Amino acid sequence: MTHQIAVVVGSLRRDSFIRRLATALAKLAPEFSFKQVEIGDLPLYNHGDNADPAAPVKRLKSEIKSAQGVLFVTPEYNRSIPGVLKNAIDHASRPYGQSAWAGKPAGVIGVSPGAISTAVAQQHLRNILAYLDMPTLGQPEAFVRVSDGLFDKDGNMGADSSKFLGQRMQRYVAWVKLHSPG
Amino acid sequence: MTHQIAVVVGSLRRDSFIRRLATALAKLAPEFSFKQVEIGDLPLYNHGDNADPAAPVKRLKSEIKSAQGVLFVTPEYNRSIPGVLKNAIDHASRPYGQSAWAGKPAGVIGVSPGAISTAVAQQHLRNILAYLDMPTLGQPEAFVRVSDGLFDKDGNMGADSSKFLGQRMQRYVAWVKLHSPG
Amino acid sequence: MTHQIAVVVGSLRRDSFIRRLATALAKLAPEFSFKQVEIGDLPLYNHGDNADPAAPVKRLKSEIKSAQGVLFVTPEYNRSIPGVLKNAIDHASRPYGQSAWAGKPAGVIGVSPGAISTAVAQQHLRNILAYLDMPTLGQPEAFVRVSDGLFDKDGNMGADSSKFLGQRMQRYVAWVKLHSPG
Amino acid sequence: MTHQIAVVVGSLRRDSFIRRLATALAKLAPEFSFKQVEIGDLPLYNHGDNADPAAPVKRLKSEIKSAQGVLFVTPEYNRSIPGVLKNAIDHASRPYGQSAWAGKPAGVIGVSPGAISTAVAQQHLRNILAYLDMPTLGQPEAFVRVSDGLFDKDGNMGADSSKFLGQRMQRYVAWVKLHSPG
Repeated sequence: MTHQIAVVVGSLRRDSFIRRLATALAKLAPEFSFKQVEIGDLPLYNHGDNADPAAPVKRLKSEIKSAQGVLFVTPEYNRSIPGVLKNAIDHASRPYGQSAWAGKPAGVIGVSPGAISTAVAQQHLRNILAYLDMPTLGQPEAFVRVSDGLFDKDGNMGADSSKFLGQRMQRYVAWVKLHSPG
Repeated sequence: MTHQIAVVVGSLRRDSFIRRLATALAKLAPEFSFKQVEIGDLPLYNHGDNADPAAPVKRLKSEIKSAQGVLFVTPEYNRSIPGVLKNAIDHASRPYGQSAWAGKPAGVIGVSPGAISTAVAQQHLRNILAYLDMPTLGQPEAFVRVSDGLFDKDGNMGADSSKFLGQRMQRYVAWVKLHSPG
Repeated sequence: MTHQIAVVVGSLRRDSFIRRLATALAKLAPEFSFKQVEIGDLPLYNHGDNADPAAPVKRLKSEIKSAQGVLFVTPEYNRSIPGVLKNAIDHASRPYGQSAWAGKPAGVIGVSPGAISTAVAQQHLRNILAYLDMPTLGQPEAFVRVSDGLFDKDGNMGADSSKFLGQRMQRYVAWVKLHSPG
Repeated sequence: MTHQIAVVVGSLRRDSFIRRLATALAKLAPEFSFKQVEIGDLPLYNHGDNADPAAPVKRLKSEIKSAQGVLFVTPEYNRSIPGVLKNAIDHASRPYGQSAWAGKPAGVIGVSPGAISTAVAQQHLRNILAYLDMPTLGQPEAFVRVSDGLFDKDGNMGADSSKFLGQRMQRYVAWVKLHSPG
């Protein structure tokens, strides 16, 4: 059976480089089926709502639970992950003992607008994923920069980028298979 | 003139220990005027909205800008700060070059529900505040536990807690005055 | 064949609680063979010495390379891991491309002298281990406190502690076997 | 009276870019007197030696105590600060209650060999310095790359680099004066 991978994109902008990259990454691992989950319609997490979660919260938890792996594609905001990404993580982790994340093998891809990397955001995210008991691929770390010109003017990824990111995705595929034999 | 301090509470629950604590902390530093800012009605941050921010975003930025200091009172969710708190930080930091946080002296108080401390959340928050160029008080670190029974059944803080947290607040007062002479 | 586990203790004190704990942990996973590696006779790492490493450096690298897993048992010094532990990690990671750590499955046990946990040290260590490409067990996190009275006056671990830490060691055993089938 | 600044260089290599940079930074703030402290002859920290510290430990603590500020110039090793730097920090922080670091205003300059920044090492260091109660300058963050060609073939810093780093050093000077009026 084909592995289902939930892709969590840490930015809400629709027509963005990061979303285009997330789509392109999926094509580099054709043996898996990737689906970007929606996090932009979630309410702000409020502990008091645990007993009666909103529909988008239920949908997110269901999508994560039914996946065999999770791929985070995230920018860095103010030397950490975006609040919108952390809000999604908080929602799907509750209530206590009913986290949707537990045990799902994870990969982390950082995307920054310019020359500054996403190194700190990625480390904070790794701290969180360890706590959530998600086995997370260590190397190769991926720091993708918009300025690197991954896509040509027709929106296709160049050969060098495809090779570079394709190798990373292959290690991710092996990592997911090890932890979710399916 | 009395210093105005914006208090940012990292949890949305209305009737919560953390909100009661934030209110009590203000009374321990009567020479300052404290105001809890609302972060529960903010939208999820979307880079595309920078040109036309929602009313709650404008209000938050205005309240932070007019304050001489900021006090963060935060729980730890999944070994980092809550998404709802990070979302507020992200909003008031944008657009680039127009951050409301820059230069505001800050204090950090961590509040955890039980025996587990907020040590990691506080470190992530300190990383963020350093990037935002907010001079942040180092010691005394404050790890407050709900289980410590700070309040008696009438909602008053006991003498030991008042002394302990009062000393911390006095150092915070001195720190704010050093960085915002007013 | 029995798995060999290299135990790296982040404190040099000979007659210490942490060393006693490291010894006791080994007994909770009798299917593996544990060996505490010596890091107290290493020189301070100097990039210029890479071409001609000292004998203790060669020994450490050899011991790590021949192990199927690594167990870190560490205190927290000044909200990070001890310099002595980081020095050992730096030595065995060099020269570039010849790291002894790569691919070794790891576990992290934190030990603190009193009520304050080792949460921040553990997160820094996890950041480092991810970079070193060591698959690291997420949960259960282990925060052991000297004050918890793990050992009776005869130096034996009590039944509750044995059960609690034994469960953690069993998950570590399964983690090592998954990543180092042997 | 001229402020004395203790410069702590996080690498032991004698003829290194980082040491040359540390020397050049001092010239950009001529109103202060800078002295690079020796950390390469320290023993590995052992809690058991607190009662009778070695001569290099006493010297380091004395040099830090007599300074009005500290400047850390550090590379990143394995996504954290070098063990040799953490070892020096640990020594001068003990025994408990007799830390030499408390209250000293600090600055952090990161130096990396190539294109990869020192972002994570700097964040770990900032966590440590907050715990040590050292007020630490937030912005401007400094990520210096060896590949940026700061020095010409005669060892002089170019005009652009002098201006860029000179502005950072002027903010550091103001920060030290605010916290150590002298």
